[in-house]
Amino acid sequence: MNAQPTRVAVLAHDLFPDLAKTATGVIRYADYEVAAVLDRSNAGSRVADHISIPTERDAPIVESMADAFDRDPEIDALVIGIAPIGGGFDESWRSDVERALEAGIDVISGLHYFLDDDEEFAALAREHGATIYDVREPHPDLTVSEGKSGEVDAHVVLTVGTDCSVGKMTVSLELQRAARERGLDAAFIPTGQTGIMIAGWGNPIDRVISDFTAGAVEEMILEHGDKDVLFVEGQGSIVHPAYSAVTCGILHGAMPDAMVLCHVAGRDAIHGYESTPVPDPETYVDLYEDLAAPVHPGEVVAGAVNTSSLDSDAAAREALDEFGSEIDGPATDPIRFDADEVLDAVLGDEP
Amino acid sequence: MNAQPTRVAVLAHDLFPDLAKTATGVIRYADYEVAAVLDRSNAGSRVADHISIPTERDAPIVESMADAFDRDPEIDALVIGIAPIGGGFDESWRSDVERALEAGIDVISGLHYFLDDDEEFAALAREHGATIYDVREPHPDLTVSEGKSGEVDAHVVLTVGTDCSVGKMTVSLELQRAARERGLDAAFIPTGQTGIMIAGWGNPIDRVISDFTAGAVEEMILEHGDKDVLFVEGQGSIVHPAYSAVTCGILHGAMPDAMVLCHVAGRDAIHGYESTPVPDPETYVDLYEDLAAPVHPGEVVAGAVNTSSLDSDAAAREALDEFGSEIDGPATDPIRFDADEVLDAVLGDEP
Repeated sequence: MNAQPTRVAVLAHDLFPDLAKTATGVIRYADYEVAAVLDRSNAGSRVADHISIPTERDAPIVESMADAFDRDPEIDALVIGIAPIGGGFDESWRSDVERALEAGIDVISGLHYFLDDDEEFAALAREHGATIYDVREPHPDLTVSEGKSGEVDAHVVLTVGTDCSVGKMTVSLELQRAARERGLDAAFIPTGQTGIMIAGWGNPIDRVISDFTAGAVEEMILEHGDKDVLFVEGQGSIVHPAYSAVTCGILHGAMPDAMVLCHVAGRDAIHGYESTPVPDPETYVDLYEDLAAPVHPGEVVAGAVNTSSLDSDAAAREALDEFGSEIDGPATDPIRFDADEVLDAVLGDEP
Repeated sequence: MNAQPTRVAVLAHDLFPDLAKTATGVIRYADYEVAAVLDRSNAGSRVADHISIPTERDAPIVESMADAFDRDPEIDALVIGIAPIGGGFDESWRSDVERALEAGIDVISGLHYFLDDDEEFAALAREHGATIYDVREPHPDLTVSEGKSGEVDAHVVLTVGTDCSVGKMTVSLELQRAARERGLDAAFIPTGQTGIMIAGWGNPIDRVISDFTAGAVEEMILEHGDKDVLFVEGQGSIVHPAYSAVTCGILHGAMPDAMVLCHVAGRDAIHGYESTPVPDPETYVDLYEDLAAPVHPGEVVAGAVNTSSLDSDAAAREALDEFGSEIDGPATDPIRFDADEVLDAVLGDEP
């Protein structure tokens, strides 16, 4: 998809903030502004009452799309910021989506249930000139990789993981933010549904035809190849029993110059595959580097560890020092501390 | 798909034998019998006039489906044995497909153009109780791997490659044949369109959603897990810039106990990606073994080299000796010589 919203409303009824990963991601990291959050359970409060965010990213929580328009008629998209188990559409959200489409604004959804397949929504969108973006649906012109990502001017940085859900998206976004603060033209290359909704564009790599995995990444790298630095959101893990194909395709499709190994403190088996132990960090470094080398050499130069399970900053520092010494590079928790030292490492001699 | 033909006609108009890879594969290796080949350019001759095959696999070449039925009314399926560039359907084949469907027999096709989407063919199939199998179309119930392939009783052997088109399917089929000759209950696990048409069943791994790559392989391993030995057809190469995702998903989805590294003599760059050199054989052995180990340990125990470009058997023997010493195991060209020594190596202490 390639939506270009500037001010959005984010639907997160009844699940904000803890079960609204997409909503909180969009509020924290999107390039566009969040004008309002729709959550009937918390209407009247503000986002900052629930999560820790910079003041300029705070927004009111309202009851409905109609209320959001009353406060801000300039809203130009509705983002579906929650996904119930199974990815279905909750009928109680229908009036909000209708109200958005009737106003002619775009609707961006990462649900498994494609809103564009809903006859009523599709008709309303046609009638009012709105576009429905179902971000889980790959665009139809994807094809095989030509092996050209290594030729772009941009310095390419890929987050790789010891497992799924270890913070690869967050680390990529924090590095992008830190790079922009240094004045670099830095892009985030999204590969999963939440990343795509935050960026407003991208290919859902886990949903493309397996033959096109690398090609769908390459398409995005080439599109942004003239920037200073690209932070590519990795997926899964190269030792994941189910998802390693996606990880491998992203590695060879992105052809990174540098990699950041992401981990969650205390994780010692692949989540959901408890008979598969998480190897030691050095094994991951060797696997990612050795597999990258024949296609495009790239090194794991830094680490990122989610230390939220550790109570004290001292314990977190200790975990980071240990991880860093195992991978022979700096390691950080960019949420708890900052991303500067890791950014230095991934940029190396770059701009 | 899960077709169960017993005697088939194979359509190969104008392209037999050199450009009819599926037709010749089916003739050489299918479990079912080939009763006739349809090729208007060669009608009146026999298969053995064109390719070297065992006598019991010879078949007449005829003008049309009608002629094939005249010779053998017991034919129970029509296999489309050729694929023009682009994978389209040639309208000059329409009368043969119509004739087959009108007789109520199944039609098995690996074309990109799905015959089941052709309204006329779909209507004829419904009317006459025939089934159209478009083998490139993954079945709708595929899902993510549960990581259970390692638990099957069968000894699992995977062919892996230095590149695409190095003989992985052929080597798997030759090993299956050699194992059956020793009285083993050996299955071929097909992962690509030609393999699927030969076997009459299988999942087209390169066409499944990338998240389901390993799962689609696991489904087949579990289905045949009670056999003595499974020969899994590998795809692509772990260093292929475009297709490594498929290769990696098959490796972790199959969880092989033993691997056979396949190569073509003289190939020194990835086909179509000439700036990517083919690493030395030892590098491949390390990559495949190191990547397999954290999920399910398996070793590269033997090699197979297509030596058809080498004129003399002596030169072929020399190439095989060199390849074997580099991977530290026996190597053969199963078409030029035989598969016995490699079969010994992959079976190890098995049944």
